[in-house]
Amino acid sequence: MTRVIFLGDSFVQGVGDPEHRGWVGRVLQATGGAVTGFNLGIRRNTSEDVLRRCWPEVEARVVPDEDNRLVVSFGSNDMVEENGTVRVAADRCVANLASLLQESALRGIPVLVVGPPPVIDAGAAHLRRTVDLAAAMAGLCAARNVPFVATTEALAADPVWTSEALARDGAHPGAGGYRRLAELVLAGGWPGWISG
Amino acid sequence: MTRVIFLGDSFVQGVGDPEHRGWVGRVLQATGGAVTGFNLGIRRNTSEDVLRRCWPEVEARVVPDEDNRLVVSFGSNDMVEENGTVRVAADRCVANLASLLQESALRGIPVLVVGPPPVIDAGAAHLRRTVDLAAAMAGLCAARNVPFVATTEALAADPVWTSEALARDGAHPGAGGYRRLAELVLAGGWPGWISG
Repeated sequence: MTRVIFLGDSFVQGVGDPEHRGWVGRVLQATGGAVTGFNLGIRRNTSEDVLRRCWPEVEARVVPDEDNRLVVSFGSNDMVEENGTVRVAADRCVANLASLLQESALRGIPVLVVGPPPVIDAGAAHLRRTVDLAAAMAGLCAARNVPFVATTEALAADPVWTSEALARDGAHPGAGGYRRLAELVLAGGWPGWISG
Repeated sequence: MTRVIFLGDSFVQGVGDPEHRGWVGRVLQATGGAVTGFNLGIRRNTSEDVLRRCWPEVEARVVPDEDNRLVVSFGSNDMVEENGTVRVAADRCVANLASLLQESALRGIPVLVVGPPPVIDAGAAHLRRTVDLAAAMAGLCAARNVPFVATTEALAADPVWTSEALARDGAHPGAGGYRRLAELVLAGGWPGWISG
């Protein structure tokens, strides 16, 4: 019995999906088999917020000697500007990811990282920051031999994702956008990781 | 923005649903509108397990002065016999629910309770214990003016629920059974509670 815990923000949570399963539910459905998913996405969460709460929440969900896994996705909220500064600086966000990867390795829990989706109505500067952050995350993951799924640029250029986000709250897509993000994950490191 | 946190066991989690949204996702889909759901179901959790972890997890998800709500569903695992005794005695389970209702009231968080679904392959004695437990829970909820949705007997008599459970692991239904449970919740106290 494989247990996959998904840690992150509103995109992990699937906010805006009328079917209430987001990309996480769609990836699990496509995976099939005996996989139990735990969705620990929380809207507005930055990497700091995730790090603050994650280990007690993970501990309540892992079972010793079972196949426990972790999927992590954050960063879009870190890069949002509030009162003239970003909520969490990029180097801090990458350090938070490094800390999370290290702790997971100590606990023997394999990790897959999904890059930060774009926040469509947050403007070009936010997109540039998020693209740069995603590149830094990808570099860290490569160095740690952790699979990383890039999403930022593909979704920013995706007409379904962008039109759905703009028709809603400017950030969160509907079923079509989450389907597209699920496809990126399934076409990325997921299949090899989940069966490895 | 309404936030609904779902606390409970594998039935809350939706284990076995190939669409990975369970009754929780289906109830939220039918509700529509700006409702954010947080699914904190954990398989094998008893009322003791839920109580041990729930307040830090709830605190990470509520936002002051927003419309925060709690849905609680446990008891099926409490009533499972292991090594000749039930995992958690019925009076203890009801006391745990009372403690949870009291703490929610202190925090000003409205609660709805969904009764424990049957575990089809656990036998007639488990079903009797679960029916009795559900009745005690209903009495407590009535006394505290908290809506309670009965599920045990209706699902134990439901051909879709029972046939799906028996075709799988003996406890968890598929999409049809979760749809049926969602219908019970939607036909029960949910609509008045969520809009109240």
